[in-house]
Amino acid sequence: MTGRFEGPEYHISKTRLETLVDGIFAIAMTLLVLGINPPRPEDSLAQSVLPGMIEGLVPQVFLFIVSFLVLALFWMGHHRQFHIVRKIDPALLWINILILISIVFVPFSTDVAGDYPDVMDAALLFHTNMFIVGLLFFVQWRYICRHEHLCEPVLEKAVMRGGSYHSMLVPAIAAIGGILCFVNPPLSLLIYFALPLGTYLLGQVPAP
Amino acid sequence: MTGRFEGPEYHISKTRLETLVDGIFAIAMTLLVLGINPPRPEDSLAQSVLPGMIEGLVPQVFLFIVSFLVLALFWMGHHRQFHIVRKIDPALLWINILILISIVFVPFSTDVAGDYPDVMDAALLFHTNMFIVGLLFFVQWRYICRHEHLCEPVLEKAVMRGGSYHSMLVPAIAAIGGILCFVNPPLSLLIYFALPLGTYLLGQVPAP
Amino acid sequence: MTGRFEGPEYHISKTRLETLVDGIFAIAMTLLVLGINPPRPEDSLAQSVLPGMIEGLVPQVFLFIVSFLVLALFWMGHHRQFHIVRKIDPALLWINILILISIVFVPFSTDVAGDYPDVMDAALLFHTNMFIVGLLFFVQWRYICRHEHLCEPVLEKAVMRGGSYHSMLVPAIAAIGGILCFVNPPLSLLIYFALPLGTYLLGQVPAP
Amino acid sequence: MTGRFEGPEYHISKTRLETLVDGIFAIAMTLLVLGINPPRPEDSLAQSVLPGMIEGLVPQVFLFIVSFLVLALFWMGHHRQFHIVRKIDPALLWINILILISIVFVPFSTDVAGDYPDVMDAALLFHTNMFIVGLLFFVQWRYICRHEHLCEPVLEKAVMRGGSYHSMLVPAIAAIGGILCFVNPPLSLLIYFALPLGTYLLGQVPAP
Repeated sequence: MTGRFEGPEYHISKTRLETLVDGIFAIAMTLLVLGINPPRPEDSLAQSVLPGMIEGLVPQVFLFIVSFLVLALFWMGHHRQFHIVRKIDPALLWINILILISIVFVPFSTDVAGDYPDVMDAALLFHTNMFIVGLLFFVQWRYICRHEHLCEPVLEKAVMRGGSYHSMLVPAIAAIGGILCFVNPPLSLLIYFALPLGTYLLGQVPAP
Repeated sequence: MTGRFEGPEYHISKTRLETLVDGIFAIAMTLLVLGINPPRPEDSLAQSVLPGMIEGLVPQVFLFIVSFLVLALFWMGHHRQFHIVRKIDPALLWINILILISIVFVPFSTDVAGDYPDVMDAALLFHTNMFIVGLLFFVQWRYICRHEHLCEPVLEKAVMRGGSYHSMLVPAIAAIGGILCFVNPPLSLLIYFALPLGTYLLGQVPAP
Repeated sequence: MTGRFEGPEYHISKTRLETLVDGIFAIAMTLLVLGINPPRPEDSLAQSVLPGMIEGLVPQVFLFIVSFLVLALFWMGHHRQFHIVRKIDPALLWINILILISIVFVPFSTDVAGDYPDVMDAALLFHTNMFIVGLLFFVQWRYICRHEHLCEPVLEKAVMRGGSYHSMLVPAIAAIGGILCFVNPPLSLLIYFALPLGTYLLGQVPAP
Repeated sequence: MTGRFEGPEYHISKTRLETLVDGIFAIAMTLLVLGINPPRPEDSLAQSVLPGMIEGLVPQVFLFIVSFLVLALFWMGHHRQFHIVRKIDPALLWINILILISIVFVPFSTDVAGDYPDVMDAALLFHTNMFIVGLLFFVQWRYICRHEHLCEPVLEKAVMRGGSYHSMLVPAIAAIGGILCFVNPPLSLLIYFALPLGTYLLGQVPAP
């Protein structure tokens, strides 16, 4: 009852962890909007300058939408993975804490990459962030698959494999983006539009 | 069980989607307040300058209240529409994701329009944002009406039609505001006070 | 089923309204911290300047704590009042929307009053905000008392009266603060320390 | 039914308090990211300057992660302690309000310490904040242990003692950090990496 590995985190229920996860997703998705800097010209110049300034926000708004959609995909992925989880163990809890840290970081990396889409380091920060979130989801999925006592019902092999393919999609795309941004940073940010295509191609693969 | 269209989003329950939606509404409604820029005069000047600066915030506070009330109406509309939804399918899920993106954008467009109510582009940004949210709610309602297997109980024709009228109210008013703002931007922002009147006129129309 | 007054808001359940209210309270209470401006001296000066700047934040931190405690009291008050509410009608819904607008405004008025506690207008803004929230809670209580069909069980007269006394406490203190701030703005902000005393004095009064 | 001590807070349910606590934890953990200041160089200089500026954010990102992990530990601690609480009394409610105030303050103290890790006062502010949160958790635990009528089932002595040891871990580490920061402020911030070690050493101690 107080063994080393089931001791401290023993009483964290699945429901409560999901509540924290859903709350942090909702807040991070909403904070994304703070990355769009509202233009603040002088009142006397506003009539002539503001229209151009609003147009200049297009890259920021674009990346805001990209990040929102990727976070929405991660949120769905979390629900799909947790749909078969019956109980939480300390390792699974800590994988979730790491996922949450990297989710909370997304509004920051989106902000930087949206402000400076031409600068390689800014785009790379964004791709790295997305890669880490995606990788952690992959790790979580592998962990769930390998610990049958956490699951209900026991997973079929095909679903395990399909889930792995699905959760490799975002890391793969982020990795391609990370390579592409050495060549053309703004173009590399467009790579995430390959996500719907990837999801479509994986549509017939069994998944959780 | 793993068909193309019910595959990936298969396990998103209605309850959880509602939790995300409610969370994002609550956060977006609260973030609106960050659009009111707290005046920051020098300490030595504060006594004489601050009163005038606080009065100068009236347009920002006004638009903060307008946005809050419109978001509250959208929130109620979401609950009314989801009251009859029994289960979520992928299309309905994605309509909701699009609704959420445009809801999260509201604190930004409110901020810009509140800062520069005299500038056409700022007011137009606000009207466009509200129009898109309203349109998506209309699309969602039509989608629900056309997919009886998602609903419980099956909808009466009169309620379907009434719900359509109700969800056309905000888009109609935002469109009028959008046209009006070519003539008089600050006046166009007052159009949303027609919402209670419109709701009253629709009061006898059957609705979900 | 589609009468004017029970039509549109008909399907808002008590639970969902409480979720929105709890969410907005939690976010507003947390956003209060953004009103404390982190000092940003030049790196080279930080060693010598920062200690004094941190001390200079005392009024902001003080008002942050005051606002947090008053919001916590309002949150408890909301739960006490809703404990006896069985169902929501449109008027009660709209009273809640107005309460939420004024709650969301608190981080702003706290920010201004914390930055300029010496300026009458800043302190007055804070007292007015608190007065309005308190008044709306009083209005809500009276509304609940007068509509027995919304309550369960039916209220005793003594509890009704006690609840009114309780919900007049904050408005009364905010009104005194509002008058006091014409004489001494910073002192007027200390008035909220009378709240525990007031709560103690009302301790024997029956309350919901 | 209306006695002094069970009067006003009488109707606050355990579930609702947990919802507020979980919400505020989620928001505070997410707001931590706002403490990382996105660099804003001139567009023309961005290519050459931004990489260095991003590297310069390392201390801020580091402290963001530390704070996130410590808040996650506190969140788990709250769940462990509340797992055995059956009902809330006014004192327990107010301990929680105090815990929440100090949790909400964490994004601020993290921001300051992350910006100026070399300045003793900034590091001290951070350690003090963590010490107070930890102390309040210790106080809460002692309070729970001493009021058996709030608990279910009644606690074993060994679990009581173990829980006390566990909840003294963070305050002890923060106190050491507070002393260390008089000698070497940036080093003192690394002390929180002793938390996993401490948790490991306490792993065999019975805990709630």
